[in-house]
Amino acid sequence: AEDLYPTRLADGEMMTLRKDPVLWSDWDESAPITKSEAEHYAEKGYLVRRDLFSKDEVGVMIETSRKLREQGQRIRAEDLITEPESEAVRTIFRLEEHSDLFDRVARDERMAGLARFLLGDDVYIHQSRLNYKPGFTGKEFYWHSDFETWHAEDGMPRMRAVSASLLLTDNSALNGPLMLIPGSHLTFIGTQGETPDANHESSLKKQEIGVPSQETLKRLAAEAGIDHVEGPAGTVIFFECNTLHGSNGNITPDPRSNAFFVYNAVSNASAEPFAAKSPRPDYLANRGTPKAIQPVKGSFGEA
Amino acid sequence: AEDLYPTRLADGEMMTLRKDPVLWSDWDESAPITKSEAEHYAEKGYLVRRDLFSKDEVGVMIETSRKLREQGQRIRAEDLITEPESEAVRTIFRLEEHSDLFDRVARDERMAGLARFLLGDDVYIHQSRLNYKPGFTGKEFYWHSDFETWHAEDGMPRMRAVSASLLLTDNSALNGPLMLIPGSHLTFIGTQGETPDANHESSLKKQEIGVPSQETLKRLAAEAGIDHVEGPAGTVIFFECNTLHGSNGNITPDPRSNAFFVYNAVSNASAEPFAAKSPRPDYLANRGTPKAIQPVKGSFGEA
Repeated sequence: AEDLYPTRLADGEMMTLRKDPVLWSDWDESAPITKSEAEHYAEKGYLVRRDLFSKDEVGVMIETSRKLREQGQRIRAEDLITEPESEAVRTIFRLEEHSDLFDRVARDERMAGLARFLLGDDVYIHQSRLNYKPGFTGKEFYWHSDFETWHAEDGMPRMRAVSASLLLTDNSALNGPLMLIPGSHLTFIGTQGETPDANHESSLKKQEIGVPSQETLKRLAAEAGIDHVEGPAGTVIFFECNTLHGSNGNITPDPRSNAFFVYNAVSNASAEPFAAKSPRPDYLANRGTPKAIQPVKGSFGEA
Repeated sequence: AEDLYPTRLADGEMMTLRKDPVLWSDWDESAPITKSEAEHYAEKGYLVRRDLFSKDEVGVMIETSRKLREQGQRIRAEDLITEPESEAVRTIFRLEEHSDLFDRVARDERMAGLARFLLGDDVYIHQSRLNYKPGFTGKEFYWHSDFETWHAEDGMPRMRAVSASLLLTDNSALNGPLMLIPGSHLTFIGTQGETPDANHESSLKKQEIGVPSQETLKRLAAEAGIDHVEGPAGTVIFFECNTLHGSNGNITPDPRSNAFFVYNAVSNASAEPFAAKSPRPDYLANRGTPKAIQPVKGSFGEA
């Protein structure tokens, strides 16, 4: 396939204009978001929904995530990431395969239906995970575009994916909230530096390849500022696959946890990597023939 | 001298009630702060002043700190700390010895006079420094009470000192602001773990001895919350020597810099360490006979 977004360049960073729409559907009154939300998403590259789930539903998700974490040892090793300096569970990949509840959440109309609207296509899960960022020792996650990695290492051809981060803890400005550079999704930053073999083995703990230069980040942040998302558990942040984001470390006692689902358009399935020798493993990038999600209506809190 | 605040304990953490006043002067209308500011300081353990210096004065201090940092190589090595993973200047100790301007600032009525009121005594500088916390890679500083270290390792007998942190960059919630646990100054936390030899050589980069347990921090933060200070350059935070504080790392492009002066009462001069074999070096703890500061009135911006 043609490479619209060259990256992992030997000779230096290269900025190119986005060649894809941001909002792939025309808004009308039947849309799952308001017109101003649609405009915000198109312009800023993200959208925050604070009222998607009931208190009961949020409670069930928190309880389920707590149990999953406790049972971390039982989960197959390839789906598990632990903190660099301890054995604490940091990430559980392929979340929907380890939990009926989160499988239901991933297919929920409020999540998958909204993603389908944003992407103007049937959707499937490209990647999913449950993240735990402990209090006191939670590490930072440096600025990056998810699409840059998915394009380079997973072979995702176009910018037609959206991440949904569902908060499972309250998030304040002080406990490592998601920070985003608004409008950054409109430019693709082809990064400097070729992809090492098995880059994901280190990049999941600390990303050093595939990140923009400090000079570029400085300029973008000076122009557009840095947004961050505060909110109670249950808040969902939909952010476009090319929006630059990161989070600070966290010495407060308050942990940060979220469930993370990447929805990709079925027409945008991953093929051969554009800038890596071999594709990343299945737990990071769903590579089979995409199976479209049939969104499920109704609540699940009472179960 | 009698040890009112035992710490660095072999057998476990031990909490004792503060045995010293917080505000050592009686407030009246001649005080340099309002009555409600005095009450806030007594109750919370810190006080923020946003209007002490003129725009010109702040500009001169920023410019002076920039030059000091650039000339870091010329400063004597013992007064210099660099970032763990780079050579960038992180801290310049004995700031007033390296800069006439900051010597003037340290003796300014608005700083030293205010400290003299809070401490009810003549004051001298126990420690001073210029701190740089760069953007992108600024490291966290974990929760601690300054007094715990000064008592254990410098032999400061009583809680009769106050730190003044003068911001030289704008500080937001996202670029590693000072966080404080309000009210924590009313309890002394004797920490678990004996002091290693030359502990300051590692504790300045990453403090691991002399810090409260996670359990205790969790309880204190749950009871009182965590305050943080946002403000433009020129903001000054006076915090009581036993107030627990720390700061998160910072991946934003915005650096954090401040000038830091510890005022101690002349009647509270350091003697033999209470919980270390030998005292820390002079750049960390002024140990001679205290020389009282004569506060200087007037502005310095036009010079």
